[in-house]
Parts: sequence; C-alpha cells; structure tokens
Amino acid sequence: MDTERFERGKKQLEMMSGAGVDAMLDNLEGIAPDLTRYTVEFPYGDVLGRPGLDLKSRQVATVAALTALGNAPVQLNAHISMALNVGCTREEIVETITQMAVYAGFPAALNGMAVAKDVFAARDRKGLR
Amino acid sequence: MDTERFERGKKQLEMMSGAGVDAMLDNLEGIAPDLTRYTVEFPYGDVLGRPGLDLKSRQVATVAALTALGNAPVQLNAHISMALNVGCTREEIVETITQMAVYAGFPAALNGMAVAKDVFAARDRKGLR
Amino acid sequence: MDTERFERGKKQLEMMSGAGVDAMLDNLEGIAPDLTRYTVEFPYGDVLGRPGLDLKSRQVATVAALTALGNAPVQLNAHISMALNVGCTREEIVETITQMAVYAGFPAALNGMAVAKDVFAARDRKGLR
Amino acid sequence: MDTERFERGKKQLEMMSGAGVDAMLDNLEGIAPDLTRYTVEFPYGDVLGRPGLDLKSRQVATVAALTALGNAPVQLNAHISMALNVGCTREEIVETITQMAVYAGFPAALNGMAVAKDVFAARDRKGLR
Amino acid sequence: MDTERFERGKKQLEMMSGAGVDAMLDNLEGIAPDLTRYTVEFPYGDVLGRPGLDLKSRQVATVAALTALGNAPVQLNAHISMALNVGCTREEIVETITQMAVYAGFPAALNGMAVAKDVFAARDRKGLR
Amino acid sequence: MDTERFERGKKQLEMMSGAGVDAMLDNLEGIAPDLTRYTVEFPYGDVLGRPGLDLKSRQVATVAALTALGNAPVQLNAHISMALNVGCTREEIVETITQMAVYAGFPAALNGMAVAKDVFAARDRKGLR
Repeated sequence: MDTERFERGKKQLEMMSGAGVDAMLDNLEGIAPDLTRYTVEFPYGDVLGRPGLDLKSRQVATVAALTALGNAPVQLNAHISMALNVGCTREEIVETITQMAVYAGFPAALNGMAVAKDVFAARDRKGLR
Repeated sequence: MDTERFERGKKQLEMMSGAGVDAMLDNLEGIAPDLTRYTVEFPYGDVLGRPGLDLKSRQVATVAALTALGNAPVQLNAHISMALNVGCTREEIVETITQMAVYAGFPAALNGMAVAKDVFAARDRKGLR
Repeated sequence: MDTERFERGKKQLEMMSGAGVDAMLDNLEGIAPDLTRYTVEFPYGDVLGRPGLDLKSRQVATVAALTALGNAPVQLNAHISMALNVGCTREEIVETITQMAVYAGFPAALNGMAVAKDVFAARDRKGLR
Repeated sequence: MDTERFERGKKQLEMMSGAGVDAMLDNLEGIAPDLTRYTVEFPYGDVLGRPGLDLKSRQVATVAALTALGNAPVQLNAHISMALNVGCTREEIVETITQMAVYAGFPAALNGMAVAKDVFAARDRKGLR
Repeated sequence: MDTERFERGKKQLEMMSGAGVDAMLDNLEGIAPDLTRYTVEFPYGDVLGRPGLDLKSRQVATVAALTALGNAPVQLNAHISMALNVGCTREEIVETITQMAVYAGFPAALNGMAVAKDVFAARDRKGLR
Repeated sequence: MDTERFERGKKQLEMMSGAGVDAMLDNLEGIAPDLTRYTVEFPYGDVLGRPGLDLKSRQVATVAALTALGNAPVQLNAHISMALNVGCTREEIVETITQMAVYAGFPAALNGMAVAKDVFAARDRKGLR
C-alpha cells in the first residue's frame, strides 16, 4: 500500500470535509476497500492538493461538473459542503449552479440547485455558514 | 427585440473574446438568427456578467463542465480562450482539466487537454499569453 | 427586471401547467430567485411560445430529450403532464418514450415509462385525461 | 432471419430516407451484418412505423433527443434529412433544435444547429426542400 | 406478434434472472405492453443469447456500461444480479465497477458500487452467492 | 514521483498496446506532464493489472463503457486495439459493441462499430489479427 499518498489524501479530505473521514471510509470498505483507498489516494492525495489552482476554484470546478453531468447528487452534495468549508460563499455556489443552465440546460441547473438547498438547510441546522 | 439585454451581452462577449463578435454572430444567423440572439442575450447578457462570482471563476466552471460533458469541443476551445482572456493562467486551465479525470474519467480529461493544447498553440502563433 | 418577458413566461407556464405557478416559483426562490426568474423568462417567455412549431410537438421534443438524457425525472414528470395539458394523448407520450429505446437505449426508455406511469396514475386520481 | 420485420423495416427506411438503402446497409455489413440487420428490423421495422404517433412527430422526437445527447452528429444529420422527407419544415427543425438550448444547454443546441446547417446546404445543392 | 423471438427472449430472461418473469412483464404492461414486449424480444431474444461472446462477458459489458452512464440504477441492480446468476463472482463485479473510476470518473464508480452493495446484501438475505 | 507505480503502469501499458509508449507519453507531456503521468500510474499502474478480473474481460468492460458514453472515439480506438492485443477476438469486440445498442441506443452502437471498422482495417494493413 502506498502509505504516503493515502495519508496525504486523508489529511486533504479531512481538511476539506471538516470532519474525520472514517465514516466515509467505512461505507464501502466492506465490499470495495480498494476503490475506497483509491478515492482517498488519487482525488485527494494526488489532485486536489496540487498547486496551480486554488482550492476554492477547484471546488467551483467540481460543483460545475457534477451539476452539468447531473447523475451524482450524493457527490454534488458532499462537494458543495466542501466548497463552503474551503471558503466559497453560498452566493458563489448559487452562481456556479445557475451558470450551468447555460451549458447543460435548465433541468441540470434546477436539480443542482435543489441539492444546494438541502446542503444549505443542513448547514443551517448545524450552525455552519 | 430586447435591445438592452442584447447590447449588454454583445459587450460582455466582446470583452471576453477580445474581438468583434460579428463573425460569430454571422455564422448561424442565416438559418437560426434567434438562437444566435438568445446566445448573446442569455449566457452573455444575463448570466456571465452577474456579480457574486468573479469572471475567472466563471470560466473555470465552464471549462470544467464542458470537459466533463465531453461533447462540445468547439465551445470548450472558445471558452478556454476566453478564460485566458479574462485572467486565468494556462496552468489554471491545465489544472481544471486535469481535475476532471477524477470526476468524469480520464478520456474526458485527455480529450479536454487536447483541446487546450490546440488553443495554446494557436495563441502562441498570435503572441497571446 | 425584464417585466414583459417574465409576465409572458408566467402566462405560458400557467397555460401549460394548468395551474397557478406560485408554488413552483416559491420553491427555489429563497435561495436562487434569479434562476427561478430565468426559468420563467427564457424557456417559457422566449422559447415555448414561439411560432414555427406547435406546442404539442414542442412537448414531444422535450419528453423525448428528457427521456434520452435520463437524469431529470422531476422535470420529465412535469413535462409529461404539460404535454397532456396542451393536447398530447397518453398514447403519444407512450410512443415517444418507447421510441427512445432506439436512440438512447432500453434503460432510458424503461425509466422514462416509469415516470409516465406515475403521471398517468396521479392524473387518474384527479380525473384528468 | 426474420424476413418480415426486415422487409417492413427496409420499406420504412427507404420511404423515410427517400432513396435505396443498400449503401447504408453495405457500410457496416462487412464487419457487423447483424447490427446492420437489427438497425433495419427494430427501429424501422418495429418502432418508426407504429401508429399512435405521426411520423413527423417521431422525427421531431429523434432530432430533439440526438441534439440533446450531442454525441451522434452523423445520425442527427440523417434524421434531420428524414424529418424533412416526411413533411417537417426547415423551420420546425430549427425550432426543435433551438428548444434544446433550454433542456440540454446552448452548446448542444449550437452544435445541433451546425448539423442542420450542413443538411440544409446539402439539400439546397440537390434541389430538395 | 413475433412469438418465436418473444418465447426465446422469455427463456433467456428467466435463465438469467433465475425466476419467472411475469412480475417484471406485468409492471409496465398496463401502460406500455409493446415496450415490455420489445424488451423481451430484442435484448433477450435477439442479443444476449448470441454466440460470439460468452454470457459472463456480456454481463461484465452491461455492468460496465450502466455504471459509466450512471443514470439507470434500477437496471444496474438487475444486471449485477443476473451477472452473478450466470457465473460472475462478486469480485469480478467489484473489479468491473472499480475500473469505471478510470473511464467515467469516481462518482460513477462509487454510485455503481453502492448499487452492488445493495445487491450483495439482498442476495445474502436470500442465501444466494 | 511515485516511481514504482509509474514503472508498473508503463509495463502494463506497453504489454497491452504492444509497443513502446513514448509517443503516447510525449503527446501531452509538453503541456500536461502530470496528467500524462497519472494516466500511466492510476489506470495502468493501479487498476488494469489487478487480479480478480482477467484482462480480456477488463477490455470488454472498457470497450462497452466507451461505446456507451460515445464521446471518446480516440480512446475507444486505442482500447479496441488493446483488447485484440490481450486476446479478445474481433468477433468479441463486434458482439460487445452490438450489445450496446440495447443499453445506450443504436447511434452509440453504430458509432462504436465505425471505430472498430477503422481499427480492424488498420490492423489488416499491419498484418495484425
């Protein structure tokens, strides 16, 4: 196992999600431990901590892409929350999703916004910005 | 016709594309003048000039989404160029596209990068950054 | 605000949905009032009332596209209902969705048909055709 | 072989394409004769000749879906031509594609319109409406 | 009706699903009997029983494609189960889905794996391998 | 740099592609050396050499997914060739692509088959099976 990348990825993921990641890691670990490990190593260990693009912009990119693709609402939910954790404002999220009406159509934007609404409400309940 | 939105959109598009837009407007005007007009009015007149998200971040969002969708290389080409025009660095474009390997797969990222390579080469020939 | 387009869009949407649209407008208004407004202005105010294609055919086009894309069941539900409201028969909806098995595969068609089944059942309960 | 469905499909395809279909049938026959045969049997022999939705509406549905999916320009080209052959006007094609800006985004609509432009020009050269 | 293809398809489907198919056939039959019939005739009657590719590989192909497309979880669930019924191991399913992280992105793979987890749990409860 | 994964990936890629990979590696290296490196490390170094699914089945999965997605013909071309290199027959490729007509529609299958036709012709010229 590639301990260094995994540890780097785990730290990156914890920093972005604002919480311990054991629950997430446990979820699929029973049946697909290696996919779980790759998810920590490649996206978080290799890519999201790279220099050359600030983390806020990286989350704008991910929120845009997942809204446009429209078939991963669970991941969109998680990444909107991480975007807010790393410094994006709610307004920036709303603007990013609104803009997807242009590039992926109104249904994609409306469905992305419904996910954002859920995230904002959940964060309100927890007192998160 | 909605002159104010059209004029606002035309200015926004000219500012982002760094050139007169008549060629682009002429292209489909013969068969679909209203789609051409809507393209100026809604994306450029309504959305891309909105406050709440800076224009660099808006172009990161668009480059990310078009790379992820993978079926609009002509528009991706245009938006990479506009991203550079409004202040994104080539490195930021490369990072945005690289990140799409995570969210839309390696083929999408590699094909997006091939478009970026073309844009960069065309701009080198014109002495643009 | 572009009052004329908004009012035209609101009328078009009310005519097609067969009901007041305030509930729909309220839904995202708290977090994204402008996306809500654009949804009224551009699809309903600009596009769906255009001459050159009758409204029944427009709804066939939308039901076909949303079935083929397969990632917007909420909007497909709404547009099947609007299609019936503007004069499409249930048989025409079923045929449109069936045909998508050819162009987008059987899973897309079967999932679209499941949405149609829900719409038909809801309308049966309300005594709508 | 299912001669009846194949013959029915071949007639339907010839009627819609306005020409003998041997060239099309020959194209992939060398390597995939059965996919070629299925293409005649299922879409043309089973689906497109069904009652319950007129042929013009069927072609509006197909043009809408292929424009929205955005990854089959060759087939979109063929189906725009068939739409015109079975009675759609060029305006109806332009309206159908324009409407896809709403449901699949502007890039999809603009790329679909570029295909329509090619079809219209080719038909102008042949003196077809 | 094309009795021979339907009967062949029904047998193929029963063999793959390990159960009578009447429930499945009944589901949409009320509103779309012909789509139901086509689903038996074309995928099961024509394609999945073809020689030239063994049935295990066919199910690997389907699981891969539905995971990558990401918008048909109900069908992915059914095809993972059929894959196991025709001889694929759970490990082969997990590997196929893991591999889709490369070609369609991590969200697609993670969502496909969540479906597999459900299938495995349901089969554990029934004592199926 | 993660030398071990890169070297393992390079060997895997060379084995599958039947040639030195320097040309491929050079292609994007000028502008995106890290995406190139990741492409060697993650797909080839981590995933494709895994036990639990034989390499022929892995290539069936990839050919199926890329045919279904329909927006990566360059990668589909490369993976059909690699599939043949690792032991798939041309018939198995044709069957895999034909089957995608069921799950992603006829246009996706026909476009995938056109790519296969090109690959087969190129290999005929080189005397490859």
